[in-house]
Amino acid sequence: MKLGLNLSFAVKRWIEPDVLARMCARDFGVKHIQFTWDLIDPWWPDEQRDILAREYKSAFDAEGLVIDATFGGLAGYTYPQLLAPSRMQRDISFTFFKRAIDLTAQMGAGVMGTPVGGMSFNDARNADRRKHLYDDMLDYVAKLASYGKQKGLKEIHIEATPLITEFPHSPNVCVRMMEDLKGTDIPVRLLIDWGHALYKPLLEDEADISLWFKKCGPYIGSIHLQQTDGMLDRHWDFTKTGIITPELIKKATAEAGLDDIVQYLEVVTIFETPDEAVYEGMKKTMDYLHAALEA
Amino acid sequence: MKLGLNLSFAVKRWIEPDVLARMCARDFGVKHIQFTWDLIDPWWPDEQRDILAREYKSAFDAEGLVIDATFGGLAGYTYPQLLAPSRMQRDISFTFFKRAIDLTAQMGAGVMGTPVGGMSFNDARNADRRKHLYDDMLDYVAKLASYGKQKGLKEIHIEATPLITEFPHSPNVCVRMMEDLKGTDIPVRLLIDWGHALYKPLLEDEADISLWFKKCGPYIGSIHLQQTDGMLDRHWDFTKTGIITPELIKKATAEAGLDDIVQYLEVVTIFETPDEAVYEGMKKTMDYLHAALEA
Repeated sequence: MKLGLNLSFAVKRWIEPDVLARMCARDFGVKHIQFTWDLIDPWWPDEQRDILAREYKSAFDAEGLVIDATFGGLAGYTYPQLLAPSRMQRDISFTFFKRAIDLTAQMGAGVMGTPVGGMSFNDARNADRRKHLYDDMLDYVAKLASYGKQKGLKEIHIEATPLITEFPHSPNVCVRMMEDLKGTDIPVRLLIDWGHALYKPLLEDEADISLWFKKCGPYIGSIHLQQTDGMLDRHWDFTKTGIITPELIKKATAEAGLDDIVQYLEVVTIFETPDEAVYEGMKKTMDYLHAALEA
Repeated sequence: MKLGLNLSFAVKRWIEPDVLARMCARDFGVKHIQFTWDLIDPWWPDEQRDILAREYKSAFDAEGLVIDATFGGLAGYTYPQLLAPSRMQRDISFTFFKRAIDLTAQMGAGVMGTPVGGMSFNDARNADRRKHLYDDMLDYVAKLASYGKQKGLKEIHIEATPLITEFPHSPNVCVRMMEDLKGTDIPVRLLIDWGHALYKPLLEDEADISLWFKKCGPYIGSIHLQQTDGMLDRHWDFTKTGIITPELIKKATAEAGLDDIVQYLEVVTIFETPDEAVYEGMKKTMDYLHAALEA
């Protein structure tokens, strides 16, 4: 099992590139980094955005870390993106994800990943509209794969989310979507998040990580690790009491043959949590996970 | 007391302009609307952004609603903005807020409002850096007031937040900031959020709405209403049990002479809450507040 780190914990807190890189390497002892767009918004003006991207890359290089991927965060998830009701909004989202690919290329990372978006109340309850928006989204993702190839990307990772108004939201929808995206110019694979996969209110009997890993295994490109109680999408660190144990992580991962897939811890805290508490939770969590998972 | 509505509840759910306008007017019975940048990102390409802004304006006009203001939401709050560690990032934020002023002008609204940003862990704990970033932020806000004047804006509203790493975060810092911003090309005023003002872990004895309203009263341009328990920044609807009562709202508002200031209900739900539950909470809350506050 390979433990990596998504940088969401650092948003608005440890944002000087050298400070953050040092913390990841020396305090948290990780090598594999998934960079979040909550630190650099793909919309930012190209020239300034790319300078900052290169500053982060240099700082992480200097600490011997590898930025495997850049990934959508809270800000990008706030918008309906490729499942918006109007074509114009979906076109705006396509521009956004192309810019995210540009950012990824600037950071020398091989993977751009994101959830694809969400449907409005009305669209989500209309079978014809769901079908139309799903098909249209596949076209956009295929075009993003072509654009990614031009820019030197290796893969695109699509995140499964715990919402019936979004695609993909279940093991079966994941498999169908990956089948529908076969043959894109670069591979499109899945990112499975432990907390999304174990979200009981939506998934009921399918809130079972072994089921997800077995069904989706061949398509999984990366994994998000979090602690959760299965009742909400918690994104807790592992100092909180939840349903995910190191034993379960090791067993489910090994049984599905996913030991070579990086599992990025993705902790999201509320803004008013004091920095010191966030750091302490992260430090204890990383020490605990290293000891328990890599023993 | 004037009850208005911030559109944050609708993000990713009711996003067709006519659907949202009809809901606000007919189901929720409000007239005063504060539009959120979580529906239109100021960064979106000008031409597409402005078409969508005009679609929202037409739909809200058609229902007899008034968009008083546009206001920063979750996405904008994710970034450090005008208090970022590097000048380049602060310049990016200045561009962002100028674009928000452009969006505001397109919607025919008189007010652009936002929190100004947050400091990094290191900067927030260094008195010299705090002073430098505070002064620098004042310069940016004054320049935004000049730009706003050119674009026909009437006022800029700065939101007080419940974080020691941000400005302003207390009644005294609010007053000082407003004094320091006297004489800008258009007035800069405060937005006070009930849940931020009553946040006990930071404010302790100052978590007292009468204190906030009395100290800051002359500078208050608008107010955010939410239900909260005072322990976190909840942004609950009023079907939840909290410490804010209609009696307190009416009494504190009247005593401070703020009856003419619009108080926009700002409900923020987690993404996985089903649409139906969000709507039901909003409908009950608006019925309750109309009955209790406007009796």
